[in-house]
Amino acid sequence: MATLLAFAADGARLSNLRGLTDRLAALGARTTTRSFRGRVLLVVDGPRSEPLGAELAASDQITQVLDTAAPHPLASRAAWPQDSVVRIGDAEFGGSRPVLIAGPCSAENPDVLLETAAAVKAAGASMLRVGIFKPRTSPYSFQGLGRAGISALSAVRAEHGLPVVSELISVRDLDVLPGVADLIQIGARNMQNYPLLAEVARAGRPLLLKRGFAATVGEWLNAAEYLLAHGASEVVLCERGIRTFEPATRFTLDLGAVPVVKELSHLPVIVDPSHAAGSARLVPALAAAGLAAGADGLIIEVHPRPHEALSDGEQSLDLPGFAALADRLRALGTALGRPLTAAEASEPQLVSVP
Amino acid sequence: MATLLAFAADGARLSNLRGLTDRLAALGARTTTRSFRGRVLLVVDGPRSEPLGAELAASDQITQVLDTAAPHPLASRAAWPQDSVVRIGDAEFGGSRPVLIAGPCSAENPDVLLETAAAVKAAGASMLRVGIFKPRTSPYSFQGLGRAGISALSAVRAEHGLPVVSELISVRDLDVLPGVADLIQIGARNMQNYPLLAEVARAGRPLLLKRGFAATVGEWLNAAEYLLAHGASEVVLCERGIRTFEPATRFTLDLGAVPVVKELSHLPVIVDPSHAAGSARLVPALAAAGLAAGADGLIIEVHPRPHEALSDGEQSLDLPGFAALADRLRALGTALGRPLTAAEASEPQLVSVP
Amino acid sequence: MATLLAFAADGARLSNLRGLTDRLAALGARTTTRSFRGRVLLVVDGPRSEPLGAELAASDQITQVLDTAAPHPLASRAAWPQDSVVRIGDAEFGGSRPVLIAGPCSAENPDVLLETAAAVKAAGASMLRVGIFKPRTSPYSFQGLGRAGISALSAVRAEHGLPVVSELISVRDLDVLPGVADLIQIGARNMQNYPLLAEVARAGRPLLLKRGFAATVGEWLNAAEYLLAHGASEVVLCERGIRTFEPATRFTLDLGAVPVVKELSHLPVIVDPSHAAGSARLVPALAAAGLAAGADGLIIEVHPRPHEALSDGEQSLDLPGFAALADRLRALGTALGRPLTAAEASEPQLVSVP
Amino acid sequence: MATLLAFAADGARLSNLRGLTDRLAALGARTTTRSFRGRVLLVVDGPRSEPLGAELAASDQITQVLDTAAPHPLASRAAWPQDSVVRIGDAEFGGSRPVLIAGPCSAENPDVLLETAAAVKAAGASMLRVGIFKPRTSPYSFQGLGRAGISALSAVRAEHGLPVVSELISVRDLDVLPGVADLIQIGARNMQNYPLLAEVARAGRPLLLKRGFAATVGEWLNAAEYLLAHGASEVVLCERGIRTFEPATRFTLDLGAVPVVKELSHLPVIVDPSHAAGSARLVPALAAAGLAAGADGLIIEVHPRPHEALSDGEQSLDLPGFAALADRLRALGTALGRPLTAAEASEPQLVSVP
Repeated sequence: MATLLAFAADGARLSNLRGLTDRLAALGARTTTRSFRGRVLLVVDGPRSEPLGAELAASDQITQVLDTAAPHPLASRAAWPQDSVVRIGDAEFGGSRPVLIAGPCSAENPDVLLETAAAVKAAGASMLRVGIFKPRTSPYSFQGLGRAGISALSAVRAEHGLPVVSELISVRDLDVLPGVADLIQIGARNMQNYPLLAEVARAGRPLLLKRGFAATVGEWLNAAEYLLAHGASEVVLCERGIRTFEPATRFTLDLGAVPVVKELSHLPVIVDPSHAAGSARLVPALAAAGLAAGADGLIIEVHPRPHEALSDGEQSLDLPGFAALADRLRALGTALGRPLTAAEASEPQLVSVP
Repeated sequence: MATLLAFAADGARLSNLRGLTDRLAALGARTTTRSFRGRVLLVVDGPRSEPLGAELAASDQITQVLDTAAPHPLASRAAWPQDSVVRIGDAEFGGSRPVLIAGPCSAENPDVLLETAAAVKAAGASMLRVGIFKPRTSPYSFQGLGRAGISALSAVRAEHGLPVVSELISVRDLDVLPGVADLIQIGARNMQNYPLLAEVARAGRPLLLKRGFAATVGEWLNAAEYLLAHGASEVVLCERGIRTFEPATRFTLDLGAVPVVKELSHLPVIVDPSHAAGSARLVPALAAAGLAAGADGLIIEVHPRPHEALSDGEQSLDLPGFAALADRLRALGTALGRPLTAAEASEPQLVSVP
Repeated sequence: MATLLAFAADGARLSNLRGLTDRLAALGARTTTRSFRGRVLLVVDGPRSEPLGAELAASDQITQVLDTAAPHPLASRAAWPQDSVVRIGDAEFGGSRPVLIAGPCSAENPDVLLETAAAVKAAGASMLRVGIFKPRTSPYSFQGLGRAGISALSAVRAEHGLPVVSELISVRDLDVLPGVADLIQIGARNMQNYPLLAEVARAGRPLLLKRGFAATVGEWLNAAEYLLAHGASEVVLCERGIRTFEPATRFTLDLGAVPVVKELSHLPVIVDPSHAAGSARLVPALAAAGLAAGADGLIIEVHPRPHEALSDGEQSLDLPGFAALADRLRALGTALGRPLTAAEASEPQLVSVP
Repeated sequence: MATLLAFAADGARLSNLRGLTDRLAALGARTTTRSFRGRVLLVVDGPRSEPLGAELAASDQITQVLDTAAPHPLASRAAWPQDSVVRIGDAEFGGSRPVLIAGPCSAENPDVLLETAAAVKAAGASMLRVGIFKPRTSPYSFQGLGRAGISALSAVRAEHGLPVVSELISVRDLDVLPGVADLIQIGARNMQNYPLLAEVARAGRPLLLKRGFAATVGEWLNAAEYLLAHGASEVVLCERGIRTFEPATRFTLDLGAVPVVKELSHLPVIVDPSHAAGSARLVPALAAAGLAAGADGLIIEVHPRPHEALSDGEQSLDLPGFAALADRLRALGTALGRPLTAAEASEPQLVSVP
């Protein structure tokens, strides 16, 4: 069995493709069509790739053919040579202005959330991160507010007008999370949870795919390919540190992955210095390094009173610490020719989920 | 918030515990009871551990108290000092006779499955491994037969009387897999898929928990704790190689983990040499090493025609190769004072799921 | 046996310490004195640490006592709370201006060396890196010019007035290398070659200690401690990537190590993006990231014609590539409040080796 | 430049090769000859490999040509298809009987050494391991007896007739160590200390090359190639654990490396379970696993009173513990068809160093 992906010429209409799909059917292939970043994409499943490829190459309705035997075809630069840009509110991941995301590890209670949102917005963050479903190593640790946190997310979006990124850890929560999250995070521990990837890809929301902490860049892009192959087209990658022998940091931030991803893929990539560092003292240096390495954004843990946080307090900046770091990052972005996205006052419009 | 676990004295009845739970309630705690490996277990959630611990320690209805602030309490030897034994058909994981499990990576078609089952049973395997849901790195690779493979599993169980281990990758399949799998496998990529762990723990089946390829032994035992905390009591661990810098093997089999697990936990642990090796030529050496390291069993990939396998053919033994290895392992087990479990002719009884 | 290190009060004279050393001798200890970064240091070896520590603490000639049972005492901030600064020509490692070092992996011939030196100096490098003794994985690869390269180093120093850093790989070369190298490099593969560390520490030259690619930060600082304990006081550390499972880069640059080292130690730390990247295309991003992470300098491989290089050509920038990067790093340094050291025209003075 | 290696036909005399070497010289090549495991080996350095290879292939004096552009040619099976056997006293590394080596990490004093030697010999070890030069992470730790330990090594060899393996850490000690060590160990930290490899290769002693703890199997074999290329022909490899993220053991023993080495190379390979485990409790399982994986021997740390050892006491077996393990390994070796070498009473003959 072989699967080929073929992009139709601009302006191609399905009716024009009928002849082609009939000829492919005669070769034993089944063809389905979908849209990929505004282009018509034919997915051709058949017994052998060569004759199908020849038929597709011969058609003037087709501008490009990708063989899925190659690694991560839709995530590769071959499918989309320019940088793909994912827009959420004022934020443009993959554009010319890196995005600052900040917020608490988990929404312990609505007040902390509102307090943090106000502060990080004032400091220049253009998105809020907050978890309500938390994957914790111990079953006895605080697991997040769960579904009870949905209203807190709604409230903070409404009050502060900051788009929200929040993690999905189970297909069971697909009924509620897309309604309140502008960007749905797939965490490192779920990067290879393929059924979750396949389902969330159809949720109609932009997706933030964190790198598994033992995943190669190739495997990470293959996970992105799951999302793209199952219907997502707005995917942002996030480097958050890999597991190595070094105990001085919680994970080893792999900033070489940033230019590597940029070379191999059109997808935006941001950096999470907080989970890599495991200690707030190390976050400013790693945040600056991530920006200098070319990241399209940073996602940083912030808590009004880190020592009171129910999870990951040790790695959270406090509010003044974040404000100081944001100032420094703004100067750095400007020097790099990539000024940070500025947060605007307008309330984000959460497009209704299809 | 604190959670304490308390084992009731043998023969304790719930009515006798009423006074205790009332006193705990007066301290602000909520107590639930469940059974853990035949013992009555109280789960006590309250505001602070010290007064609850004191109250529990003072009760003559309670024989042991575990604080969940300690790592993996139910998986530890503290909760169950002797080796726990998981019985499936003739196999006794954690008993005196290591178990040989063999079979194809995935059930490509029923005939291959039946052919393999007959051969591995004849060679001495006492369980059959076979995947119908396959987590594959690329979304375009063969993903297993899926639900269509359920009947093939039923057929091979019925015809050859071999209990079956098969992998669950999504909560969506909990309606069908427990009906045909005697042992449900949680794969390495799902070891930290906590919602899946919580749901499968209530499926009423013994569980095989593979080690995540970047998980420490401590994290692996914490994942086992998720299973035990959510209701499972029959859990078998499986070491299958960790990710390192060495490219000569697919993963690095960590056999030191076998005696480490034995020291820390009462749970049985088996070894998968096939996924670690990534090459059939290396499997016999690693299988023998795993047995010598003290594993309670081995799970080995076998395919009648490895070069035709739709997944992982390179690491599959062929049928004569497996038969030769099984002979060698039998001799080795005997020399180690731990003869392998012999397969019997009787059909396994799949206890109905509660 | 215990070893204590004690700093004498400023202005303390050895004659004033006679009474103390006599009392220590009465406790069974042998005391030697040396100088450490301008302070008088007593090294006290005795049977038990407590009575010696008490005696030292009671003396008003002693301002500070370090127990060598603690990790890397002389390399720690305890021994030297401020940043230690290593001056070589115009370069000040550990001062306010990061240092740019550039040059070819190995001195294949004097002409390439002269051409590169002129270009990197013009672009703003304030030191030249060049290897004449090369540790190569294969015994049949080019091993560097060896002792025949000494005159080439002399020539390039004389002609271009750039101080030189060059690697020592054997105690056999201690008779010649200190005569031409302003900074002697200990490579990653020799970081735990303790006899080499002990001998080079007495060579009277500043030392550049690269991190072993499988060394923890703690082990790296212990290697620095070998140098300091055996007489060196001018030591610069260099992060150059650690070995991980990720194949997309040659090594994984661990930039978290930069702030970690700064917290634990007074020693300057620079970053080598070239060996970590393994590919010239990735070097600019990692160089910028290293600077942003707080490094005291960068050491970058440059070759006039990388494809002709006898070693590591793939990771070498060409001359225009380096000039462009240097411009970018200068802007970045300024934005970070740490402008790069500017190279001056004066010829470096190689202080005669004692 | 290219280097080719050519084996002369059995019985070839240098005079017969004159014509060939003249023709190679006409092609710009320089040829030297040496002996490799009893065969005459021509080392041909010239400008391009193709014409030299053609000339060599055309000669009926030459039976085999190896290109050094291939990895580790002399260490590969291509150079020596059968297993090479290294004989030391009664021990035959690479033969049909695995070798048991035991002894203390370091020779703290002669009495401990003599006591241990007597006990491990009685228990069945056929070689004694003992370090007098110790590479220690801290410069303040016990560094071994150093040259003062040479006489202790002589004494124990003379009294107990056990051949000795001892580590060389510096070329400075090449004047004394080969006189008392039957097998010279190159430790993991020196595996890529190429000048040391080149010099020890000419010492006329069999060599034990431990794997660097971050070295791939390919790099390890390249280090062996340094030894073989510089004149050694009796080389034994030793797997001793690699550095990974897992903290439960000191290193992760990579037993997959044993069959991988056997496939790629003719060199014997033994296993050191003690340094990998870091804890005596784990040593028996890993020793048995190493033997089952196909190792040609085991090297195990033993100390009469482990808690008194000046280094690595935690991982040393005591004398009864070693005797029990040796019994178990003997049974296991027999079951595997590879009974352990039995120690004999005769004094080993240390062939005088050429």
